[in-house]
Amino acid sequence: MNLLLLEDGDFVAADRALLRGRRLKHLHEVHRAAVGDSLRVGRLDGLMGSGQLLRLDANEAELSVELDQRAPDKLPLTLLLALPRPKMLRRVLQTVSAMGVPRLVLLNSYRVEKSFWQTPFLEPAAIREQLILGLEQARDTVLPEIIIEKRFKPFVEDRLPALAAGSLGLIGHPGAYPACPRAVDRAVTLAIGPEGGWIPYEVDKLQEAGLQPVQLGERILRVETAVTALLARLF
Amino acid sequence: MNLLLLEDGDFVAADRALLRGRRLKHLHEVHRAAVGDSLRVGRLDGLMGSGQLLRLDANEAELSVELDQRAPDKLPLTLLLALPRPKMLRRVLQTVSAMGVPRLVLLNSYRVEKSFWQTPFLEPAAIREQLILGLEQARDTVLPEIIIEKRFKPFVEDRLPALAAGSLGLIGHPGAYPACPRAVDRAVTLAIGPEGGWIPYEVDKLQEAGLQPVQLGERILRVETAVTALLARLF
Repeated sequence: MNLLLLEDGDFVAADRALLRGRRLKHLHEVHRAAVGDSLRVGRLDGLMGSGQLLRLDANEAELSVELDQRAPDKLPLTLLLALPRPKMLRRVLQTVSAMGVPRLVLLNSYRVEKSFWQTPFLEPAAIREQLILGLEQARDTVLPEIIIEKRFKPFVEDRLPALAAGSLGLIGHPGAYPACPRAVDRAVTLAIGPEGGWIPYEVDKLQEAGLQPVQLGERILRVETAVTALLARLF
Repeated sequence: MNLLLLEDGDFVAADRALLRGRRLKHLHEVHRAAVGDSLRVGRLDGLMGSGQLLRLDANEAELSVELDQRAPDKLPLTLLLALPRPKMLRRVLQTVSAMGVPRLVLLNSYRVEKSFWQTPFLEPAAIREQLILGLEQARDTVLPEIIIEKRFKPFVEDRLPALAAGSLGLIGHPGAYPACPRAVDRAVTLAIGPEGGWIPYEVDKLQEAGLQPVQLGERILRVETAVTALLARLF
């Protein structure tokens, strides 16, 4: 936790917040914080700044808060991801949030196992929990938008063309394709497939929607690694 | 497992291998393989190619193997990493192996908790297990070299200058430093700090050894994410 993220409900006055639960535990056990300490804080969907610990005991912490810095910019990106397996999903949500992706579409694909859609990690509260861990890691305050699309074809045919309009549309896909471009200076729509990759029909449909396949080399990377590697290369 | 990795002990003839244990279980449960199937195989520290399943039962599998492709190139890189916490260490070893890092130095740092050096995940067999998972993921056959350095100062003063000689020496470090270069066409020595970063003394010592700090932006990334992002940007 490199940023203590405060939510509206934590504030008892404009410049005063009370903490309990997970963040209080973290203050005690990881920060080993003491009264008087100054901590880096942010307000969810708001500014960042510093907080001074006025009071700290086993039950709660009281902070005096001064917020004056903007959160870091997001990437100019819409990321389409075939729904990963549940354990990977949690890590990917943290990574996406930490790296500054503003909008993530979790999409079905032929190679997504049907059971993956049943995971409790897809419930809004569970998604939000992972996104917040990513924000706390990276020092950001703004939650990404998560869109869940359980049907590939209607999404890619009916909604993707508008979503991708005006952006550079890319499909991260192993094979004899051009190398993924570097340091692009425009908005990108990037689709990353499941373990085993998109099937040819899906690549065709994504191409019809305006996206072009690009590759990162011979090595097959795990989804989380591929997301990070493609974003680091593109931006 | 995108590559079935065979070791010398698996071969019963030059073109014939027997499998048991973890890989046999994977063939049954994940690949749902059947006699006659052709699988992508590789020989540890050797070539890659295909294997045909001649026989498969609950106890073992017999493969006819033809190896004729070289493993993918490694990156021209020596990676120095402050020892991560044990759970992260395992994932980082897989990532390093999958991304084609040929040599990893696990190094002490002021901010590495002493207890991290006690983890069983640092035992050679445990390290090897994670590296092999990375090779199987990425389709590579060549294990990276892992060097363990429990003392920062003697390593950085006495051995690092020779190790880094002739390469572009970089320290991935948040702060007011130049941006990490992109698409370099030479050998690199890259040092990545612990959670919380290298302390100023350590940055000074790494600089004396010929490494220069570079940054990836305002966001603080987890070690695993930082490794992937820096490598994707550099190569």
